[in-house]
Amino acid sequence: MFEARLLQANLLKKILEAIKDLVESANFDCSPEGISLQAMDTTHVTLINLVLRSDGFESYNCDRSLSLGLSLVSLSKILKCAGNDDALTIKARDNEADTVTFVFESPKNDRVSDFEVKLLDIKNEQYTIRNSEYSSVIKMPSSELQRICRDLSVIGEIVTISSNKDGVKFSVSGDSGSGNITVRPTTDSDVSAEQATVIESKEPVVLNFALKFLSNFTKATPLSPTVVIKMSEGIPVVVEYKIEDLGYLGFFLAPKIE
Amino acid sequence: MFEARLLQANLLKKILEAIKDLVESANFDCSPEGISLQAMDTTHVTLINLVLRSDGFESYNCDRSLSLGLSLVSLSKILKCAGNDDALTIKARDNEADTVTFVFESPKNDRVSDFEVKLLDIKNEQYTIRNSEYSSVIKMPSSELQRICRDLSVIGEIVTISSNKDGVKFSVSGDSGSGNITVRPTTDSDVSAEQATVIESKEPVVLNFALKFLSNFTKATPLSPTVVIKMSEGIPVVVEYKIEDLGYLGFFLAPKIE
Amino acid sequence: MFEARLLQANLLKKILEAIKDLVESANFDCSPEGISLQAMDTTHVTLINLVLRSDGFESYNCDRSLSLGLSLVSLSKILKCAGNDDALTIKARDNEADTVTFVFESPKNDRVSDFEVKLLDIKNEQYTIRNSEYSSVIKMPSSELQRICRDLSVIGEIVTISSNKDGVKFSVSGDSGSGNITVRPTTDSDVSAEQATVIESKEPVVLNFALKFLSNFTKATPLSPTVVIKMSEGIPVVVEYKIEDLGYLGFFLAPKIE
Repeated sequence: MFEARLLQANLLKKILEAIKDLVESANFDCSPEGISLQAMDTTHVTLINLVLRSDGFESYNCDRSLSLGLSLVSLSKILKCAGNDDALTIKARDNEADTVTFVFESPKNDRVSDFEVKLLDIKNEQYTIRNSEYSSVIKMPSSELQRICRDLSVIGEIVTISSNKDGVKFSVSGDSGSGNITVRPTTDSDVSAEQATVIESKEPVVLNFALKFLSNFTKATPLSPTVVIKMSEGIPVVVEYKIEDLGYLGFFLAPKIE
Repeated sequence: MFEARLLQANLLKKILEAIKDLVESANFDCSPEGISLQAMDTTHVTLINLVLRSDGFESYNCDRSLSLGLSLVSLSKILKCAGNDDALTIKARDNEADTVTFVFESPKNDRVSDFEVKLLDIKNEQYTIRNSEYSSVIKMPSSELQRICRDLSVIGEIVTISSNKDGVKFSVSGDSGSGNITVRPTTDSDVSAEQATVIESKEPVVLNFALKFLSNFTKATPLSPTVVIKMSEGIPVVVEYKIEDLGYLGFFLAPKIE
Repeated sequence: MFEARLLQANLLKKILEAIKDLVESANFDCSPEGISLQAMDTTHVTLINLVLRSDGFESYNCDRSLSLGLSLVSLSKILKCAGNDDALTIKARDNEADTVTFVFESPKNDRVSDFEVKLLDIKNEQYTIRNSEYSSVIKMPSSELQRICRDLSVIGEIVTISSNKDGVKFSVSGDSGSGNITVRPTTDSDVSAEQATVIESKEPVVLNFALKFLSNFTKATPLSPTVVIKMSEGIPVVVEYKIEDLGYLGFFLAPKIE
């Protein structure tokens, strides 16, 4: 028996909007510690790592671990039926059950919606995520990264990210010309922590990425006002969005070798 | 000679937006009592019943009844030219005339627009609308009904509406799962009459409808903050939008027999 | 060596949005007096005349005249990367250079973007623009002209503009009917100069134009709250948008002879 209640159905809605174009279906692994999801995108280029801690839920009951295999397209359709302020309860009987129930309740309790979604049998692949020390860790407003990706996408397909303690530079070149956008660490103390850009740089890093995937990650922007980008030479970049007190959504993307 | 003046051209614009996708052309029947329109949609599944009382107009002159046959597509194009606060005057000479004139005046009278629309010869079919006693009459916020139709449309095509004194339940099932949205009568006395849900239930009713048509009716949402749904077993549901002091727009839809 | 700095990159962005659908590529002629651009649209029906005076720039250095041939599509892509409050610096070395650089700086200087755009070799055609005395000069809110063009476009393709001292009338007819929108000179002294309609009429003018082109000109609406329309029988109409303290963007369109 699994039952978890979240005051903001909205958060799961935003998570689905961020990942549903990358992965068609995935297992939500529920354990006493919380819910996690790890999945490669359909082209096997990026890894999604979602962690929702049990203590971030309003109530959380999971006596035995179970995997809920779900079509993300179906789930996202159903989450669209949640009002912005609705609470969400997820209910599943056990590993043998073939459906999971999502219940949305409006704040005044004058509208209750319940949806049964069919479970899919999805092979559970385990991905090892090493906690690396990164050469460069950049915290910046998530909307700024989204804008940079959107702007540079019209110019070319590969972005070079160069980071050092003075700033992070996003460069692209294409048929119509070439361009660089440089973001510098915030020095103005009036800027709020959320709006500030902070760069922790152990050593300079220069990496190339497919801009298309980076742009796709920024669909998670509504989840968090800030994003953290972690880079080291030769290993995948991590683009991470914190989800309030609940956990985080991270994306891994291998650099392009020229 | 027919001449009617409405302070809010906007109202006719919203009426056209609500019905133009259901009916291509129709007769506006003008009599001393007011303007009415009755028409079946092109697939002959729903009946539209529009009533605009003469006393709701700012001025209204109609010495002899006449029928104005109009292409709703053309009329809606012309109504798009009305500003949000424009007044509207409709002028027609007599039954022999082949055009009707629509005049829009901006509030400060610094812009006047006049449009001549060609009249069509449309066979006038008379539909008898019986005033039934209904088993269940539901008054709810029109935006809420619109949202429910939109949300459930992504899951399936047939909606089951079950109404009793405890609430009204909209159920749908499809390939990705199934869902129910239940709206309960408002008990909170702080809620305004417009936002309240009120259910008058003589006996429980359960009926199935094509969600597509119900969704189409909710295009009338901008006309009124509330909608009234009247249901009895075996007869068409009525979905009715009151138009301020002017009249109402009602839609009839026969239930689907399983 | 050419270098010009504009506090509002936004202005060039709006200019590009206004002309990029009419002309594919054009020469920006830079001289000590300022930057100008003259180009016929691809169908050779309208002439664009852009004038940006050097004294309207924050700084302006041009020791020798040079022509910057640019793809307006590429340039508009790059200008989309400018933030709304960014400053813009345009840099070009000399007539031999094959690129021009656009630098955007955010107000707090925490984001700097630089773009190199390839120069094209475009034959410089010179158009003589006579300063005529016009029979009718209409100043009106630019949003009003935009709305009239948009509204009338759904009815027909040719607009007849009739101007005299009492007002200016835009008439269109088509399959669904015909319409006239009449704008009268503002008499209400509470209306701001920007929102007022003023007609200087030496003699009445009646001219026909392809509505499609007139609609296209109104893409310049974001550049200025007012637009000036200058008309005389038998010569092209001028539709002119003032660009703050910088200059203006004018469009010439020959009338249609019936």
